[in-house]
Amino acid sequence: MVSVNIEKLKAIVGEQNILSDPADLYIYGSDSSVHQAMPHAVARPQNTEQVQAIMRYANSEKIPVIPRGSASVMCGQVVPVYGGIILDMRDMNRILEINPEDGYCRVEPGVVDDDLNRALKPYGVFYPPTPASSVVATIGGEIANNASGTRSVKYGAARDAVLAVKVVMANGDCFSLGANTRVAASGYPLEKLLIGSEGTLAIIVEATLRFVPIPKLRCMGIAKFNLLSDAGHAISEIMSSGCQPSMLELIDRIAIVAANKAEKLGLPEVDAILLFEADGMVKEVVDPEVQKFQSICEKHNGFGFEYSYEEKERARIWAGRSKLFPSLSKYDERLASTSLADDMAVPFSKMAETADKIHEVADRHGLVMTAYGHCGAGCMHTKILMDTDDESQWEAAKAAVAEIYDFVQSVGGTTSAEHGIGLSKAAAFKKEKAETLELMRAIKKAFDPNNILNPGKLMDGPDDWVSETQLRYQTSK
Amino acid sequence: MVSVNIEKLKAIVGEQNILSDPADLYIYGSDSSVHQAMPHAVARPQNTEQVQAIMRYANSEKIPVIPRGSASVMCGQVVPVYGGIILDMRDMNRILEINPEDGYCRVEPGVVDDDLNRALKPYGVFYPPTPASSVVATIGGEIANNASGTRSVKYGAARDAVLAVKVVMANGDCFSLGANTRVAASGYPLEKLLIGSEGTLAIIVEATLRFVPIPKLRCMGIAKFNLLSDAGHAISEIMSSGCQPSMLELIDRIAIVAANKAEKLGLPEVDAILLFEADGMVKEVVDPEVQKFQSICEKHNGFGFEYSYEEKERARIWAGRSKLFPSLSKYDERLASTSLADDMAVPFSKMAETADKIHEVADRHGLVMTAYGHCGAGCMHTKILMDTDDESQWEAAKAAVAEIYDFVQSVGGTTSAEHGIGLSKAAAFKKEKAETLELMRAIKKAFDPNNILNPGKLMDGPDDWVSETQLRYQTSK
Repeated sequence: MVSVNIEKLKAIVGEQNILSDPADLYIYGSDSSVHQAMPHAVARPQNTEQVQAIMRYANSEKIPVIPRGSASVMCGQVVPVYGGIILDMRDMNRILEINPEDGYCRVEPGVVDDDLNRALKPYGVFYPPTPASSVVATIGGEIANNASGTRSVKYGAARDAVLAVKVVMANGDCFSLGANTRVAASGYPLEKLLIGSEGTLAIIVEATLRFVPIPKLRCMGIAKFNLLSDAGHAISEIMSSGCQPSMLELIDRIAIVAANKAEKLGLPEVDAILLFEADGMVKEVVDPEVQKFQSICEKHNGFGFEYSYEEKERARIWAGRSKLFPSLSKYDERLASTSLADDMAVPFSKMAETADKIHEVADRHGLVMTAYGHCGAGCMHTKILMDTDDESQWEAAKAAVAEIYDFVQSVGGTTSAEHGIGLSKAAAFKKEKAETLELMRAIKKAFDPNNILNPGKLMDGPDDWVSETQLRYQTSK
Repeated sequence: MVSVNIEKLKAIVGEQNILSDPADLYIYGSDSSVHQAMPHAVARPQNTEQVQAIMRYANSEKIPVIPRGSASVMCGQVVPVYGGIILDMRDMNRILEINPEDGYCRVEPGVVDDDLNRALKPYGVFYPPTPASSVVATIGGEIANNASGTRSVKYGAARDAVLAVKVVMANGDCFSLGANTRVAASGYPLEKLLIGSEGTLAIIVEATLRFVPIPKLRCMGIAKFNLLSDAGHAISEIMSSGCQPSMLELIDRIAIVAANKAEKLGLPEVDAILLFEADGMVKEVVDPEVQKFQSICEKHNGFGFEYSYEEKERARIWAGRSKLFPSLSKYDERLASTSLADDMAVPFSKMAETADKIHEVADRHGLVMTAYGHCGAGCMHTKILMDTDDESQWEAAKAAVAEIYDFVQSVGGTTSAEHGIGLSKAAAFKKEKAETLELMRAIKKAFDPNNILNPGKLMDGPDDWVSETQLRYQTSK
């Protein structure tokens, strides 16, 4: 059994930086997923040396350690399934260096994405892999999950932007991985291995990130479609025609209805909306992109096309998408929005087909599911709207999730685009990566021989997340 | 001792695809480095099943296996230091799929870079990480060394472009790593780990590569500098001013003199030349880039500025750079051009200082060294021009190489930008990565428990490459 010596932790980080009260532990027992579990203690390290001391202690006693930022993850990544110590990294939030000459910045893991981009703005640059949760999401958490966000279609994911990381290993050693240079071919890219490792390999205590110039112009366009398949053909043609959108988003009818209900947006309740953004330094490069977007959409029966360069107008066009996540709970007040099958990636040309499949699976299982996402990057998101009091809905959700990921794999997709695996996607992940799970376990063992870093996730996650994890919901039916 | 059963290999790939004649083995004993060693056999597999059968045999007998493409690598990566079987992958050269809708192609490892780009051209797209050796370099070799090339400043390296690989493991198992989607956050990115692994982890038998639209316009500019430090300041300012060059190249005086001698180019024999390329779909986006380049160079005492959009003129401006590599042997006919300290990466702002340091170290050791490279990506290349008959010059070269890499590490650089480590950079690499070598060895063991895949490279490479490896040169002085 896990036993944590609270006094020992207090001696390392100071009394004020240890939480062990059950009410506090309860809060730290969940993230934005459906799962929960109780940790034994929460530590808020203030510097690398404290992280090292905690790890030395935890490793000697084989106590699980789960690093976390703002816990906006949706799949249970930071739920402490075996208890142990939650490392809340948010106090390590200094921007250590902004180096415009060499095109990088160095930050601690607790820096919030929006804060970083505010600090970079005076230099005329931005850090592109920004998820919708950027107002709270920390850089450490984004790296741990290879976050990418709306602009990944043009600017890539965390894995493209992170040049180097400094990590504390399970045994307390501190290593630098990667290099602060734009290119590097110096052996195994251990820094890339860390990106997407969900806290299972090492604790990130510093990251070197590249940034890119802020475009002077952004133009946003919108087109509506009565058929998802028409929107799908438009996506394929946009992406194969030399277009270089900085965003390309799909929203389905359920999301539109919810956004209208919650925000009174008055959007036409069509089968699909495509949102498009082009950016650049001059109008002559942005205009042709928008025109191409319009003509391709119209060719595929898109209508209601409009676009704007103006910030206010862009915000109006974007409103349906920006309010989508909180709006979903308004779709039907008896149904709660759960992050299940929350994220997947498919080839662009399969986006519409995947959305259709999601709706079909949901209908068949008596659930409501929305489909939306960064279709220019092949990234699809969904939520399951369900009666969480009803035990049979959880069984239906489990079956729906499994079917959806089987479909994703059948069309050449992968289990996660940018949200990571955690607990609720572990079954699908283990099916997709069956042939390399042992290799992953061997790599994990090379980093963390005692398996103390975020155990029970990824390749060691549950096959049946309904019965094998504790849910945040109480069923009464 | 290694013993290879030639008949067994013939039974797998056919008699015509096995070489065991000493003259053939001698040719396969070297690459473009200074090193050599004799393999026991060369096998030319025709398909994945044959690679699997060879690996099963080699693994059971613990025979080293060294995969190779065109052997244009410069550091001894494919020199079989412990003998064994060279796998010449060039017959596996099919382009399996070009999928413009989903933005990727699938290729076998033996496809030559230029051939791939010729095949992609009708689709209006190109594969950007293209080294100077693209006329012979294979995609497999490029991936194994994380090649990047002149356009990496804008388009990145192989590690940015490779979405997935299919590999044959040391024990003959065949696994798919990564996914054919634009983004993915499904656990450890094993495909990224393979990129830059120099044949030590697994044999790449297929790769999925993303491509990007071919820009309609390319404009090349040139500026000359009487002082390397002025060119260095120009580089820093170009890179921190929001410029987005598609190439930014530095050439030093020694390279200019050599190019003039070899090609009668009549270039002014100044301390430094900067070459700049901007690309884009419209003139309105390219022109301002070129103007910015000119004004920054002039501010830092650059002169002789010219530029052109015309293909012929661009080729004329580029001639000094394109002929550089073969020209170097003409600098002084008593001196041979050797690939030593051939490649390194430093922050952009340290390019000029690094070039100065290289010249200073060379002078002090009685050697001639040129410095040039993709300075927009912080990538520096050099060659050592030396009397290879003279044993003392090898000792001088060894000392110079060590000093240069110590300097590179002192300014926050890394041992290789894009050429890889192999044998001649192993000492510097081991010094740079000292704290993570054991971790790399543990990862190698997870992939290749019997250490049969390209043994004796990277973290297991020689500390003293002069005395611990066999050189391709005979010394007589």
